[in-house]
Amino acid sequence: MDFVYLAFLLIPAIVFAENQCRSFPCQNRGVCMREGDSYTCDCTRTGYYGQNCETPEFWTKVKAAIKPSAETIDYLRNNLKWFWYGINNSPLRKVVMRAFYKAVTSKVDSPPLYHTGHDYTTWDTYSDWSYYTRALPPVPADCPTPMGTKGRKELPSPEYLAQTFLARRRFIPDMRRRTSVLLGFMAQHFTHQFFKTDYKKGPGRTWSNHAVDMSHVYGETTERQHQLRTFQDGKLKHQWVDGEVYPPSLQDAPVHMTYPPNVPEEKRFAIGHEFFGMLPGLFVWATVWLREHNRVCDVMKELHPDWDDERLFQTARLILIGEKIKIVVDEYIQHLAGSNVQLFWDPELLFEERFQYQNRIVVEFNHPYHWHPLMPDQFHINGTTYDMEDFLYNNDLIFKHGFNVTVDAMSRQIAGQFGPKNIGAVNLKVAVETIKRGRELRMQPLNEYRKRFVTPPYKTFQELTGDEEIAAQLEEAYGDIDAVEPYVGWLIEKPVPGNVLSRMFLQMASPFSFGGVLANPICSPGWWKPSTFGGEVGFNLVKTTTLKDLFCRNMNEPCGLVSFAVPENVEPTGLHEDVEPTGSPKGEGGFCDKDGC
Amino acid sequence: MDFVYLAFLLIPAIVFAENQCRSFPCQNRGVCMREGDSYTCDCTRTGYYGQNCETPEFWTKVKAAIKPSAETIDYLRNNLKWFWYGINNSPLRKVVMRAFYKAVTSKVDSPPLYHTGHDYTTWDTYSDWSYYTRALPPVPADCPTPMGTKGRKELPSPEYLAQTFLARRRFIPDMRRRTSVLLGFMAQHFTHQFFKTDYKKGPGRTWSNHAVDMSHVYGETTERQHQLRTFQDGKLKHQWVDGEVYPPSLQDAPVHMTYPPNVPEEKRFAIGHEFFGMLPGLFVWATVWLREHNRVCDVMKELHPDWDDERLFQTARLILIGEKIKIVVDEYIQHLAGSNVQLFWDPELLFEERFQYQNRIVVEFNHPYHWHPLMPDQFHINGTTYDMEDFLYNNDLIFKHGFNVTVDAMSRQIAGQFGPKNIGAVNLKVAVETIKRGRELRMQPLNEYRKRFVTPPYKTFQELTGDEEIAAQLEEAYGDIDAVEPYVGWLIEKPVPGNVLSRMFLQMASPFSFGGVLANPICSPGWWKPSTFGGEVGFNLVKTTTLKDLFCRNMNEPCGLVSFAVPENVEPTGLHEDVEPTGSPKGEGGFCDKDGC
Repeated sequence: MDFVYLAFLLIPAIVFAENQCRSFPCQNRGVCMREGDSYTCDCTRTGYYGQNCETPEFWTKVKAAIKPSAETIDYLRNNLKWFWYGINNSPLRKVVMRAFYKAVTSKVDSPPLYHTGHDYTTWDTYSDWSYYTRALPPVPADCPTPMGTKGRKELPSPEYLAQTFLARRRFIPDMRRRTSVLLGFMAQHFTHQFFKTDYKKGPGRTWSNHAVDMSHVYGETTERQHQLRTFQDGKLKHQWVDGEVYPPSLQDAPVHMTYPPNVPEEKRFAIGHEFFGMLPGLFVWATVWLREHNRVCDVMKELHPDWDDERLFQTARLILIGEKIKIVVDEYIQHLAGSNVQLFWDPELLFEERFQYQNRIVVEFNHPYHWHPLMPDQFHINGTTYDMEDFLYNNDLIFKHGFNVTVDAMSRQIAGQFGPKNIGAVNLKVAVETIKRGRELRMQPLNEYRKRFVTPPYKTFQELTGDEEIAAQLEEAYGDIDAVEPYVGWLIEKPVPGNVLSRMFLQMASPFSFGGVLANPICSPGWWKPSTFGGEVGFNLVKTTTLKDLFCRNMNEPCGLVSFAVPENVEPTGLHEDVEPTGSPKGEGGFCDKDGC
Repeated sequence: MDFVYLAFLLIPAIVFAENQCRSFPCQNRGVCMREGDSYTCDCTRTGYYGQNCETPEFWTKVKAAIKPSAETIDYLRNNLKWFWYGINNSPLRKVVMRAFYKAVTSKVDSPPLYHTGHDYTTWDTYSDWSYYTRALPPVPADCPTPMGTKGRKELPSPEYLAQTFLARRRFIPDMRRRTSVLLGFMAQHFTHQFFKTDYKKGPGRTWSNHAVDMSHVYGETTERQHQLRTFQDGKLKHQWVDGEVYPPSLQDAPVHMTYPPNVPEEKRFAIGHEFFGMLPGLFVWATVWLREHNRVCDVMKELHPDWDDERLFQTARLILIGEKIKIVVDEYIQHLAGSNVQLFWDPELLFEERFQYQNRIVVEFNHPYHWHPLMPDQFHINGTTYDMEDFLYNNDLIFKHGFNVTVDAMSRQIAGQFGPKNIGAVNLKVAVETIKRGRELRMQPLNEYRKRFVTPPYKTFQELTGDEEIAAQLEEAYGDIDAVEPYVGWLIEKPVPGNVLSRMFLQMASPFSFGGVLANPICSPGWWKPSTFGGEVGFNLVKTTTLKDLFCRNMNEPCGLVSFAVPENVEPTGLHEDVEPTGSPKGEGGFCDKDGC
């Protein structure tokens, strides 16, 4: 009887004990574990100790003392032009780059600690690749507010947030970095090879291989790959239009593609990724990589006449993965980051370091990579202006204007600026969906992500946005700076000087993007050698290919402008005088899959 | 016309040019690439240069000069007892162990360079886990002899080889290390969690997760796992027999199990691995881990009354993976290796080293791990002798004798000695199959594997076997010491002094086994901390569990002998006086799956 009585006393104590982990007490990547109505923080290898892992160990203090602030680093890399010119052209560039590689990659948990299937570390975190991993576990399920213990008990509707903070009033061009539309489509084309949310299963599920594997060119599965191959000389299926190579028709390569019913048979093309028939920008990128693949096969075939189709195909694929990474690091990320420091890709810089050659896609990398502000509302090609509804599924315009003219036009048109109030009406619903998915995944507040990525949390809304009106609206919406939803925060944060993107994007996404490409197996000491790429010729393609090379060696002459930025001496298209204010949708929208554009 | 004429001249030159890579010209892990009728060796990062990567670089020479020979290392570790006693009990043990970890793990290609799907490195080598990886690419397909350019044009039949070199004439007990039958079953139980050949697809295919993941307890898929779980307090389904816990009946947990039709319903048990109902030895191991899982769930439940079933289950699984690795390194491998050096598991020793926390199962690890010589022909439990046909599927005998009596008996019975002429008749067909599979996979000759694993190739057959008669028969069979098939060589090689196994097994399998367990994510700096294992209590279970603990805390008293070796002061069972010569099969055989026993 006594036992039963005791049990009755204890049950409410267990059930109603407050979970102290709700308020994120553990600092500096310490792991919170509930202990009844108390908690402990596991501070192992954080460099801190104490109840909340708040007290730095000796060497942590020393490192913190000598580490320059983010603002100092911004100043240094955006100024001292001649100093950096000297560094960029001396062997010291490798020292700087190695330090950069180490700094960014050290922020990634590899193997991952969390995934979207559990709130804690499990065997599946490592082994089940059908889940996105996550940088932080979710907000505990039993919290008094949606964001833990702070902020309002009910969050504003995603529609209100998107309309207030994200919707474009008038197109804001990226005059800071003069980013071109060609880069916008590159971002879209590039990231959809690894951001592949499996919506049927949920917002935390994915059908991705978690790597830069060129699956958007070759197909995610072997079956799709085989449908896209000719099985002759390693080449991919293609068709000739006006003397140039393009992706094959869907009749020739019957793979699953998502075309709406009104797209006629002859305008349906078979591409590695099922969404990539949707936009001429994606079609341009798909085409150039297809041409490059077949070109590389020719080069290899000449060098290795004894090789069979399979070996030519597989080796060309590895070469293309290398070329892609080369362009991503040396030109794409370089453009985004701005600064006087020349970034470059050299896998050998990590050969003596502790580094994991495996990668998993983090859901908090996917969400902020929704770069819809970059997408303009109109497209300008050789004097013709296309509204979005005329652009969508209209790959014909490439045949009409010519491939090289289209590429030239995309390099001259300026993209939208990343930041608040710049998502066009047709994409706004993607932002709404992303906010909803963030809530479903119970993502921790923006400030917790800042702490996770070694950045001081914001103290005020004004500090976050740098804009009084937005700050006031944000305070109204969330009530507490520690309760701002991460996706909203990531998109409206004030930008980093000289950079296309915001501080948090830089602090968080650099580790994932840089870490991801450097963790590719081709970068490992065992793979990084000529024989992996069919000999010195293939290895040199990997080590030297530029954006301009990629296009110019795969187009009819003349090769026009091919650039991620509209050069200073070129008059950009797509500026205000061309653009009407767009407050409401022009069409039915829906040109993007829900994962973004 | 001239061109056509030239092409006709060239075609035969290409087609009939001899592939010079056939004779394995590249030394020291250099990669051979055919260049028409010539070749090049890619010596990148081998530490060697020259046409065949045969000339050591300066530091390679220095390292080679100071590195003791394998024989010297054998002498040192098998002697100097007091010296090692001092080391084993001082902080220097960590220095020795770190050096050992580094030496063995440096021999593994991670990420893998080759898999069974291609003869060269491809993206699939990294990404397609349905293939075994391989340590060496296959013998080129167009070679003049099956083993390259050396040896006979036709190999002897697998049946002849198995009968001549492997078949047991009279049971040879392992008196060198007094290995117990309990260890034999541990090997079988342990390795089948990652050696899972998918025969329907081919000898190079696998359905494994490539890790120590305890999938033989929890099931390979989530579906199977769910069938085996109670969904209460994290526990696995079980049944009570005579006051003790055993695996559930197949009715209670309807998973796929491979029982022959003559096994009655009530003798069919549901176990993580579908083959594990076959032998009482496997049933013992399945039972003890099941009990341990449920026991750990109770421990965790008491510490964390707020945890749900899923968290209890998942955390218990991580703890069991840790306990398993602890026993494998500290006791199982220690027993196999013998020597005065105390091996121990301490993941922290690699935290400052370059090391990959990912693992892939190598087909050349699977093949030599066919330890059929260890399996006796009879089993002795508490005075009763069971022939193989009475032992097979007879899990009843555990209920009859009692679990603790069975474990005690298995710890007292001596296993067979690893080496030539000691595979019992019922298992000989597995050896025949393994030789066939090695041929299908076109495995390189034994001496190429010796070179790959930095061991001087054998010069004579006598040097390989240490037995004149076998040497003569082997020469008759293969004609050339450089043409010996690896599986045959691995099994009949003379043993390493003090070790259960042979030199090549040690040189090759140590990297894969040690590397494999150390590459488990629980060993990574991010995971190796109390919170991963539910706090200090779970972490201590992982760090301290012994073989004896595992059994004694999960059995009715008294806990008898639990040992991987029959102690010197115990009279072993299973010696010659008990054993009849077995020249022919006693039953229909087939108690093993084709992957081995």
